[in-house]
Amino acid sequence: MDDVPGSVGTSASFSLRLAQTIFSCASLFFMSLGVQFYSYTAFCYLVTIMGLAIPWSFTLAIVDGYSVLVKCPIRQPGILLLVVIGDWVLSILILAAACSTASVVDLLLHADRSFCPPRVCSRYQISAAMAFLSWFSSMASSLFNLWLLPSL
Amino acid sequence: MDDVPGSVGTSASFSLRLAQTIFSCASLFFMSLGVQFYSYTAFCYLVTIMGLAIPWSFTLAIVDGYSVLVKCPIRQPGILLLVVIGDWVLSILILAAACSTASVVDLLLHADRSFCPPRVCSRYQISAAMAFLSWFSSMASSLFNLWLLPSL
Repeated sequence: MDDVPGSVGTSASFSLRLAQTIFSCASLFFMSLGVQFYSYTAFCYLVTIMGLAIPWSFTLAIVDGYSVLVKCPIRQPGILLLVVIGDWVLSILILAAACSTASVVDLLLHADRSFCPPRVCSRYQISAAMAFLSWFSSMASSLFNLWLLPSL
Repeated sequence: MDDVPGSVGTSASFSLRLAQTIFSCASLFFMSLGVQFYSYTAFCYLVTIMGLAIPWSFTLAIVDGYSVLVKCPIRQPGILLLVVIGDWVLSILILAAACSTASVVDLLLHADRSFCPPRVCSRYQISAAMAFLSWFSSMASSLFNLWLLPSL
């Protein structure tokens, strides 16, 4: 059995999980800096989803780091399937949150300046961009693990 | 080799493709009924994506219908892979469009009545709902075909 780079228990996977955690935290941070986030449904949704994504990515980062250290990657098909499905559902939710945030920020920027001062709006934009990066790395993890699954 | 229900060339797949085409057309129709759609980025994006999704689903519906009639399903791994990747990319784009539309409609409903009279806004809501249904059936097609792929 080949070791697919990026699957659970490799250093590439560890890097991807770290990237997910960092991007999700950054997205949450820039969203929470603006104090008005709870007045828009899309922003609340982003905060909720990031609150789900951060523990998930962080836990798997710890598992990956441990696997790399002891040089014994997880190869149970059941656990791998769980990780693939979890990543996949989470990446759909993050994509939905990122798109909603981006479109609402775009509307706020163009509709009326009074809703959204430029300084606050740029924070929301950075938050949406970070959410997109988090989606991208989460989807990459899911695809790499899915690629490994039929060979087990 | 078992015949996975819902994979290319079965009657279940034909139904899924027809559902995709109908939902996409309905989404486009309800969006275009409101004449203001080109003033919002998210709505223009939805119209663009639906313009991509309708020909794709319709073409594959015709291929499926033909396969069912002549009782000779397509089983080339290359073509199947192309269909899986196409469906997958399209379902991500449709999800993004549906989420953007839904969040913008939600914002317009709550922010200011003058932006969006209730009669127009309910059309946008129906359009977003149809886009979500279209996403759901597109993702189902992609998953069924992906399930078949390793057995070829």
